[in-house]
Amino acid sequence: DVMSATKLQECRQHISAQLDGVVDFWLRHSHDAEYGGFFTCIGRDGKVYDDLKYVWLQGRQVWMYCRLYRTLERFHRPEILEAAKAGAAFLRKFARMSSSSSPWKCAFCLTRDGKAVKVQRSIFSECFYIMAMDELSRVIADQDMQLEAEQMMEQLIYWVQVDPSGLGRPRLPGDVATNSMAVPMMLLCLVRQLTEGRDHEAAQKYRELGSWCVAQILQHVQRAGTAILENVSESGAELPGSAGRLQNPGHALEAGWFLLQFSAETGDKEIQKTAIEKFIELPLEYGWDREHGGLFYFLDVDGHCPTQLEWNMKPWWPHCEALIALLMAYSQTKRPELLQRFLQVYDYSFSHFPDEKNGEWVGYLSREGSTVLDFKGGPFKGFFHVPRCLLMCERLLDDLLQMHDE
Amino acid sequence: DVMSATKLQECRQHISAQLDGVVDFWLRHSHDAEYGGFFTCIGRDGKVYDDLKYVWLQGRQVWMYCRLYRTLERFHRPEILEAAKAGAAFLRKFARMSSSSSPWKCAFCLTRDGKAVKVQRSIFSECFYIMAMDELSRVIADQDMQLEAEQMMEQLIYWVQVDPSGLGRPRLPGDVATNSMAVPMMLLCLVRQLTEGRDHEAAQKYRELGSWCVAQILQHVQRAGTAILENVSESGAELPGSAGRLQNPGHALEAGWFLLQFSAETGDKEIQKTAIEKFIELPLEYGWDREHGGLFYFLDVDGHCPTQLEWNMKPWWPHCEALIALLMAYSQTKRPELLQRFLQVYDYSFSHFPDEKNGEWVGYLSREGSTVLDFKGGPFKGFFHVPRCLLMCERLLDDLLQMHDE
Repeated sequence: DVMSATKLQECRQHISAQLDGVVDFWLRHSHDAEYGGFFTCIGRDGKVYDDLKYVWLQGRQVWMYCRLYRTLERFHRPEILEAAKAGAAFLRKFARMSSSSSPWKCAFCLTRDGKAVKVQRSIFSECFYIMAMDELSRVIADQDMQLEAEQMMEQLIYWVQVDPSGLGRPRLPGDVATNSMAVPMMLLCLVRQLTEGRDHEAAQKYRELGSWCVAQILQHVQRAGTAILENVSESGAELPGSAGRLQNPGHALEAGWFLLQFSAETGDKEIQKTAIEKFIELPLEYGWDREHGGLFYFLDVDGHCPTQLEWNMKPWWPHCEALIALLMAYSQTKRPELLQRFLQVYDYSFSHFPDEKNGEWVGYLSREGSTVLDFKGGPFKGFFHVPRCLLMCERLLDDLLQMHDE
Repeated sequence: DVMSATKLQECRQHISAQLDGVVDFWLRHSHDAEYGGFFTCIGRDGKVYDDLKYVWLQGRQVWMYCRLYRTLERFHRPEILEAAKAGAAFLRKFARMSSSSSPWKCAFCLTRDGKAVKVQRSIFSECFYIMAMDELSRVIADQDMQLEAEQMMEQLIYWVQVDPSGLGRPRLPGDVATNSMAVPMMLLCLVRQLTEGRDHEAAQKYRELGSWCVAQILQHVQRAGTAILENVSESGAELPGSAGRLQNPGHALEAGWFLLQFSAETGDKEIQKTAIEKFIELPLEYGWDREHGGLFYFLDVDGHCPTQLEWNMKPWWPHCEALIALLMAYSQTKRPELLQRFLQVYDYSFSHFPDEKNGEWVGYLSREGSTVLDFKGGPFKGFFHVPRCLLMCERLLDDLLQMHDE
C-alpha cells in the first residue's frame, strides 16, 4: 500500500544518510597514517583515547570497506579501497603470533606498532582475519590472498571439529564440551563468505560444513521450541546452571538472518520457517523490554538473574541484527507483522543510538535508554555492526521499493 | 560528645544485627552436605541457582568462618568451625590442579563434585587458599596446615617476583610488565595473615616482602599526588591508554586500610598520613557520585569513558571497604570529618544494599541506586566483603565506645 511505501522510502533515505555519515566518521578518525591499520578506541567526538588495535576490529573494518566498495556504487572510491588495503597489510604483517604452536593463530590485541598484547584461546580473531582477506581478494582479484584465507579456514575447521588443543586452552575434567552458538554462526558466515558467487567447486568444498553449522545452530532451539539457549551440550542437550540457561537475544537474531540467507540459497522452506519463528520472532518476544523498550543483552530462561553485570543494558548491535533479520524476513515473506516489528525496532534504534552532533552511534545504553558508554569505538565496537546493518537494510529497502514501483 | 556516642552506639547495634543475619544466611543456604564445600551462586531468596563452586569464594568463606569463630565470642560455635573444616577439606581435596606444571596451581571454578572447570592465569585462587588454610590452622592448631599455607606462599612469591611463566600466560612482546594494584595488595594481606600474633621469626621471614608490597602500592599514587591509578609500570610510571588511566575507587580504599594496619604495626606515621589522604580521602572525593550517591565501580582519570561496561554501577564491596577504611582512620586519628564521611557511606550502604526480607545484601546497583543483579552470591560475591566489613566495624565501634565510657 501507499502508506507503507512512503514509510519505507523515508526509512531508506534516513538509513542511506546514516550510512554516509558513519563511513565518513571512520574515514576521518580511525586511520593510522603512521603505523598503518586502524585506531579502534575512538571517543564520542572522534578523538582516539587509546591506541591499542584490536584484531577483530581491524579485520572487520577491512571487510566492511571492501564490501561497501564492491557493492554500492557511491562507495566505489579509491580512498576506501586504499584504506582496506592498508588495514589488510597491517593484519598480514602483525596479526599472526610467531610464538604460537600454529602459524595461523592470531593475537586479540596489538600495540599501535603491531606488537601482540593479548591472545584469546578462541577462534574469533582468525575468523575476522579470514573475512577480511577473502573480501579484499575479491576486490583486487588476488588469488594468493584468497588462498591464505582458505588455508586459515582449514586450521579453524581443525580446531573446531577435530582438536582444539592448539588454541592453548587446557581441557579440564569439569569443563564439558559445549556448543556455543557463536562458533557455528561464525563458521556459517565464513562458509558464505568463501563460497558466495564462486564456482561450483568452491560451493562443493564447503557444502558439508555449511550443513553441519546449520545443524549445530538448530540445536540451540530448546524447551520444546520455546527458547533459544546460547550454550548447549555437544549432543544438543540443555546444560545445567547459569551458562545453560543463558539467552542472548541479539545473537539469536543474528543467527536468524544467517539462516534466512542459507534457506534462500538452498531453497529450504523448513529452515526459513524455523529462522523466522524461532530465531527472529521468539527472541524479539522474550528479549524486548516491555517497560522501557529495546533489547536486553542477556536473560536467564528461567527468570533467574543473569550473572553478567551488563545483562539489562541495551547494546547497539542486537538492534542492528534485529533490523537486518526483520527486514530480510519481511522481504522474503511480505508478512505485514514483520514490517511492523521492523518499524518498532527502527524507531527505538534511531531515536536512541545515533549521535547527530558528532556522528556514528553510541554503543551501550542503560535499561532506561540513556547513554552509559559514550565512545564510538571500543574493544568490541568498531566499523562493523552499524554499517553492515545500514548497508544491508538500504539494499533490502531498495529491492522492496523497486518491486513496489513495478 | 554525647551525640556522636549515641550515633555510634546505634550504628554498632545495627551492624551487629546485620552480621548475625548475614552469618545466618550463609549457614542456612550455602552448605553442600552431600559433596562438601559451599554453594556460591545463591539467589535473592537463598535458593541455589547454579552449583558451580568458585575457589576464591570457597577459600574466603573458610577464612571468614574461622575469623568469626576465633575473634567474636558469639560465633565461637561448633557448627561454624565444622563448616570451615568441611570447606577446607573440599579445597584441599579438589582445588589444586593435578594437570598443572606446579603442584600449587589452583583452579578458579569447580563442579559441585570438585572437578576443575576453569583456571585463571593469575594468583588469586591461591591467595584465598592460603588465607583459608592459615586462618583455620590457627583455630585448630594444625602445624601441617600452616606449613602448607607457607609453602604455597613461597610459590606465589616466586610467580610474582621471579618468574610468572608457571601461571600459564605467554609473555607477549607488546604486553608490558605491569604493577596492578591487586597483586601487592593481596600479598600484603597475606603477609599480615601469616605473621599476625606469631613469633619474631615469622615476622622476620616476611618483613622484607611486606615493605616491598607497601612500596609497590605507593607507586599507584600518581599525577603529583592527585590520583590513585589501578595499573602502573613496574618502575612506577604511568602507563598509556585506558588501562593506564583506570581508577577503581573501592580498590584504593581497601588498600587504604591495609596501609593503616601496616602503619599501626610499624608505627610509621608517614604511611598513615598517605593512607588517609591519598588512599581514603582522595578516592572518596573522586569516586563518589555527587548526583546519585554511592561509589562508582571504575573511572578514567582524564574523564574519558571507561571501557568497562559496569563502570557507573554501584557495587557493594567498595562501600564495605570504605566503611572499614573510614572507621579505622577515624579511630586512629579522631578527626571528626572522617566520622562524618563514615556516616555518609553508612547511610548510603544501609539504605541500599541490605535485603531486609530475605537477608544478606544485594551486590550490584545501577548508577541511580536500584538493584540490577539481585542474587546474594555469584561468581565474585560470596561470604566475605559484607561479613568482614561488619565484623571489623563492630570491633572498631566497640573500641571507640569503650574509650568513650572510660
